[in-house]
Amino acid sequence: MIEAPFLLYLGHSTDPVGIKTSRGLATFRTRDCVGEFRHDGCPLTLGLPRRTMEEAAARGARTLVLGIAHPGGAMAPSLVEDAHAALMAGMNVASGLHHRLRDVPSLVALAEARGLSLIDVRDPPKDIRVGTGEFRAGRRLLTVGTDCSVGKMYAAIALAEGLEARGRVSGFGADFRATGQTGILIAGAGVPVDAVVADFISGAIEQLAPARQDGGWDVIEGQGSLFHPSFAGVSTGLLHGAQPEAIVLCHDPARVEMRGLPGRRLPDLDDCLALNLQVARLTSPRVYAAGVCLNTASMEEGPARALCRSVEDMLGLPATDPHRFGVEPILSLLCTAPSQPATIASR
Amino acid sequence: MIEAPFLLYLGHSTDPVGIKTSRGLATFRTRDCVGEFRHDGCPLTLGLPRRTMEEAAARGARTLVLGIAHPGGAMAPSLVEDAHAALMAGMNVASGLHHRLRDVPSLVALAEARGLSLIDVRDPPKDIRVGTGEFRAGRRLLTVGTDCSVGKMYAAIALAEGLEARGRVSGFGADFRATGQTGILIAGAGVPVDAVVADFISGAIEQLAPARQDGGWDVIEGQGSLFHPSFAGVSTGLLHGAQPEAIVLCHDPARVEMRGLPGRRLPDLDDCLALNLQVARLTSPRVYAAGVCLNTASMEEGPARALCRSVEDMLGLPATDPHRFGVEPILSLLCTAPSQPATIASR
Repeated sequence: MIEAPFLLYLGHSTDPVGIKTSRGLATFRTRDCVGEFRHDGCPLTLGLPRRTMEEAAARGARTLVLGIAHPGGAMAPSLVEDAHAALMAGMNVASGLHHRLRDVPSLVALAEARGLSLIDVRDPPKDIRVGTGEFRAGRRLLTVGTDCSVGKMYAAIALAEGLEARGRVSGFGADFRATGQTGILIAGAGVPVDAVVADFISGAIEQLAPARQDGGWDVIEGQGSLFHPSFAGVSTGLLHGAQPEAIVLCHDPARVEMRGLPGRRLPDLDDCLALNLQVARLTSPRVYAAGVCLNTASMEEGPARALCRSVEDMLGLPATDPHRFGVEPILSLLCTAPSQPATIASR
Repeated sequence: MIEAPFLLYLGHSTDPVGIKTSRGLATFRTRDCVGEFRHDGCPLTLGLPRRTMEEAAARGARTLVLGIAHPGGAMAPSLVEDAHAALMAGMNVASGLHHRLRDVPSLVALAEARGLSLIDVRDPPKDIRVGTGEFRAGRRLLTVGTDCSVGKMYAAIALAEGLEARGRVSGFGADFRATGQTGILIAGAGVPVDAVVADFISGAIEQLAPARQDGGWDVIEGQGSLFHPSFAGVSTGLLHGAQPEAIVLCHDPARVEMRGLPGRRLPDLDDCLALNLQVARLTSPRVYAAGVCLNTASMEEGPARALCRSVEDMLGLPATDPHRFGVEPILSLLCTAPSQPATIASR
């Protein structure tokens, strides 16, 4: 759907968390990335070669990915200028922002004139139905979080890869189900759940991860947090639509306040887990917690391991940093849990 | 914004709850309604004279209001035909459905040719920002529910009218803040919260009921239910965005299963109240419950009064049917509660 190779956009970004889409592609589709584009003064890097638009195009880049996020997804004038330059250099432009490339007439005209594409990853499908919460077959895992941008997508990809590896031996499948722009760009498919019309949040997820009968897993990427006042509606609908057999709680121990909300502190892990389980029970009465994923990137290894152990002791669940220590303990818990018998998911 | 007088549409409807928009206008804007339009075989009536399109137009009707709701808001072919007929008879057409009149090219062409308007009440404003949950001044009341269509709008209008009457004596204002198509048609303003993009649910409500300093009340119409798997995301964001000082729980004692979800039973009143307060505390730490509104239309007066008393005993809150018995006990509780001091709404 989106032509590789990619040039990854950083622009004028100064917020390391705001470039998570570009970073996600650099991490999970490294071989498809020819470099990064940043302006002078941008202090961030993905560790890829810095390229101009023309250099990237000369090295074969087919698409500039505007992999930055602002709360609400506004489109800055400099972003539009840079998209122009990419089209002039012969590249398509893909964006995950709420504001659409196709709503900028000058970009639409230029893309058309040059036979190139503008791809708005956040366009939801047109045929979403209202969710029902009816029981459906299949094993589903959802990653949930204490906050936005704490590693829910990374954890979901790691868990899906781990389950897929076990499934190759035991004879079941596992699929990562993307719900955000980064995940969709990585997986090449998914539903941008924060961009669907509010009445259809749970329905969008029922459609993304429909009933499956093969004994395999759908690992669904969570969004936001039940404790984030901007986005808890999305998280709630996602939880109900996912109808998860299991949830995995994701957390960034370095985060001192909720993303974008100065002064608002994060929930305690046990409160966050308890509320997620309570809300999830509406459509999945036997939902259980299968583990905790911590993003310990800012910590030394010793303290990181100690933190995982202390979270394990506190919650009685496997706790790990998926990228540093893997997800084996969580996979073991999932693979020994009895798959759920058919039940009517009503109270 | 929408020209009165109205002709209210019932069409082929057979579900008494599905015609709630037409019924709301018949109830709250009776003098602006010239009649109802229904096809042969439609068993429902609003108690207004049945009119053809031509008869209604001849009696001065300016707008046909498609005041019916389907889950998800689909637009049936017969609805489009009837909208055509209304335009041919010289009336504008207003709709609260998710599917837009302006997306039906034949209607757009006909309206343009005849100089008439198509009004999609469910079009959200373009300039909504992401919510913040930051403390804002003012007294706000939100109606919440055990289910969809249990009287949250009726209760909100009755409470706003009651507060306004008290305020005329005591010197404060009170405003009804509509969040659904019916309320918006009645009030002439509001935000169709179920139609905004998911990321903006709480922000839409922060914008609908901004800070106020006059000591008066914003009475916000709730939507859905935290216990409805289709729409709980909307209810959650609405609760966070409303940042209510007080909530009033609405319930229909005749409802045996959740609307649109055969076999799913309603939550208990105490569970529903408890979860609403818990979720609301994220942005309004001192939120309190101010009463219960019961829709006892299907009951005799004696049993209805007995039910109110038993709910009062169970929950320790005023319980009433707003249309049958008024809302005085709830108003008294609200007006004796100390208005909230400025506090930072963070945990």
